[in-house]
Amino acid sequence: MVRAELISVGTELLLGQILNTNAQFLAQELASLGIDVYFKTTVGDNRERLRQALQNATDRADLIILTGGLGPTEDDLTKETLAEYLQLPLVIVPEELAKLQKLFQRNNLHWTENNAKQAAFIPGSVIFNNDCGTAPGMAILNRGKGYLVFPGPPSELKQMFSRYAVPWLKECFPAEIKESLYSTVLKFSGITESGLENILADLIHAQKEITLALYVKPGEIQLRVTGKAASQSEFEKKADALLTEIRKRTVGYLFAEAGETLTEVVTQLLQQKQLTISTAESCTGGMLAARLTSIPGSSTYFSGAIVAYNNMVKAQLLGVPTELLTKFGAVSKEVGTAMAEGIRQLTGSAIGIGITGIAGPGGGTAEKPVGLVYISLATPEYTICQAHHFNGDREGIRCRTVSKAQYLLWRYLKNYANEENEVGQQT
Amino acid sequence: MVRAELISVGTELLLGQILNTNAQFLAQELASLGIDVYFKTTVGDNRERLRQALQNATDRADLIILTGGLGPTEDDLTKETLAEYLQLPLVIVPEELAKLQKLFQRNNLHWTENNAKQAAFIPGSVIFNNDCGTAPGMAILNRGKGYLVFPGPPSELKQMFSRYAVPWLKECFPAEIKESLYSTVLKFSGITESGLENILADLIHAQKEITLALYVKPGEIQLRVTGKAASQSEFEKKADALLTEIRKRTVGYLFAEAGETLTEVVTQLLQQKQLTISTAESCTGGMLAARLTSIPGSSTYFSGAIVAYNNMVKAQLLGVPTELLTKFGAVSKEVGTAMAEGIRQLTGSAIGIGITGIAGPGGGTAEKPVGLVYISLATPEYTICQAHHFNGDREGIRCRTVSKAQYLLWRYLKNYANEENEVGQQT
Repeated sequence: MVRAELISVGTELLLGQILNTNAQFLAQELASLGIDVYFKTTVGDNRERLRQALQNATDRADLIILTGGLGPTEDDLTKETLAEYLQLPLVIVPEELAKLQKLFQRNNLHWTENNAKQAAFIPGSVIFNNDCGTAPGMAILNRGKGYLVFPGPPSELKQMFSRYAVPWLKECFPAEIKESLYSTVLKFSGITESGLENILADLIHAQKEITLALYVKPGEIQLRVTGKAASQSEFEKKADALLTEIRKRTVGYLFAEAGETLTEVVTQLLQQKQLTISTAESCTGGMLAARLTSIPGSSTYFSGAIVAYNNMVKAQLLGVPTELLTKFGAVSKEVGTAMAEGIRQLTGSAIGIGITGIAGPGGGTAEKPVGLVYISLATPEYTICQAHHFNGDREGIRCRTVSKAQYLLWRYLKNYANEENEVGQQT
Repeated sequence: MVRAELISVGTELLLGQILNTNAQFLAQELASLGIDVYFKTTVGDNRERLRQALQNATDRADLIILTGGLGPTEDDLTKETLAEYLQLPLVIVPEELAKLQKLFQRNNLHWTENNAKQAAFIPGSVIFNNDCGTAPGMAILNRGKGYLVFPGPPSELKQMFSRYAVPWLKECFPAEIKESLYSTVLKFSGITESGLENILADLIHAQKEITLALYVKPGEIQLRVTGKAASQSEFEKKADALLTEIRKRTVGYLFAEAGETLTEVVTQLLQQKQLTISTAESCTGGMLAARLTSIPGSSTYFSGAIVAYNNMVKAQLLGVPTELLTKFGAVSKEVGTAMAEGIRQLTGSAIGIGITGIAGPGGGTAEKPVGLVYISLATPEYTICQAHHFNGDREGIRCRTVSKAQYLLWRYLKNYANEENEVGQQT
């Protein structure tokens, strides 16, 4: 059994200026590999105290994982202290230095000499490339103990851990990493947590070997199905009957089983069906367009969008009839529908989505309160417009609107019915 | 000077099932009291390892703060282990037991005997009432060291710390807790961390009473200026000369001193100057429009946007001349400029921003690689277009593009010069 310890380095962590999400991420990943973490320690950017932490961890654990303190500045001293502690040198690796300098050049960044230390490593260590930042990571085996060093920025650490550290761990500790925790996450939209809990209550309570846990995430509900197994395929066999039952009960809500986002799912469906889409947005200000274009290759299905923030743009650019704007107001079923149909015609897309609403905090009235949003979907087969009343602050209302629009789109692409509705009706 | 250590107890923390927000809260509170935290440790619900952590902390610190493990179940063993470590008994306090039993009765909870241990304390300790839960906390002075024990649920801990622990700390360490830490955060754009470090190197090294620390955040660099003082206004007086010097050296980069985002700063400037803006976006797909409309009241300055993802939309909706598209390609200075000028004319805005680039991962060529982005700013005074080459994945390139566009806009609104450039040139 491999025992690991985490050492997070950074005065900003000790001062509570940032939350230590890296420690949580690593703990989860190590747990799923079957590696036990017994201690987590946080120290500041201080050589002596980091040395103490290294001493304690080396006394107790087989695997010591350090995060943070790999940057170019003077208070970045993780590698320096580790090398000193192991009584090994730290040497600039020419290829890594060249890589760094090239990166700086390509990004038009000014090279200063202090950056060179990011290319210094303990001889004999494995260097982990930093695919989304500058400072590389490092792994070294020393007197039977493994030391791993990662950069502090969470996005850099996560990618480096999954891509390079996991294979290294499996290679260095093959006998230990045998039974791991496996899990599958199912994602749902268009249903609340308690609604889903009701549908699945007996399954949630009955399970022992395999556990079910619900989580509320922005724009979706997640169900985590977890069990111990020797391999992913063995876990899938164990969970098969249960997953089949869950799928049967959640048709029309379950949109992903492999970690995909709703955006990924709808854009894959658009690509498969060779359909194009465009959006006309008011209160979401381009968020739906930004979401739909966040996927590589989006030019194959996304034509364009108009953010029609004022009535002049709605009328002149989008072709919304002025009489609709004056008669029903910009936030109305009629205008939402005209926006969806307008952008569809303008761009020649198969599908048009129109969004108009009041994101607040100002602009609400008794009749049209903050949170009222009309979402219209215009397709070759039908055009519908739904009224929704979302809760939350400006950002929350905008995000919920985008999620709901994607949910309507998903239902259309999956050939599930989409119903019109009136304000105040359950959606 | 009081040195503190935090020990978080709980296997769920080691497994990463929950994020350790308590440690962040306590670190912030202690820092503001002027108490230095040198180590934070997390241990599982394990008597021997908790004893080790207590030993280490007692060797190094004056104040040891434990959180979690105060509940009624068998794996709750924080008080038990502390008592054992201090070689002191743990005794049921009748009044506390009666209080607990009454609480159970009032909330219609079933009393089980294991709950009684929540009423057990080390004789001579101060008991902290739990105003929003069951398990009380405890504080004890032993051989010159202070031990504080708090329940794990964050809401219970926070209230208990502020209401009962702070007064206790001020009573027990009156000479030490006079001054608190205060800080100000300055935000910079358009400059790298190392560039800023170079400009400020002598100030960073010279300061003792007031410390300067740089942090890289998405789209900006932050400089935290921190010092001990009796009050916020005294801190401001102490830091005044230093802040004035920093401001002088960072003109054109320093955009916020009161926590505002770059989006907030530019939209405030637009409102102050009563200027309107619109965007024409290709690779960012509406992200800049979404960002500019994220602020309440954005309809006063934001007219609208066109997301021109394909050439047809660029030509027909945005009026980009077809000959520019065929001669220079969609990703070119000429098309970027035409997009900015096109949207400005179409919407009648004072300012137009045009963005065209290759966000990848596909679509790059040797001449026009992934990450190449043209950002054009069209204003009543001038139109410029900058070429940039951003690093990162699709999301990173899109985010950096939006930040850079906002930076150009900020420079214009502050009357700083904006220079044109060619690909590969320093920007």
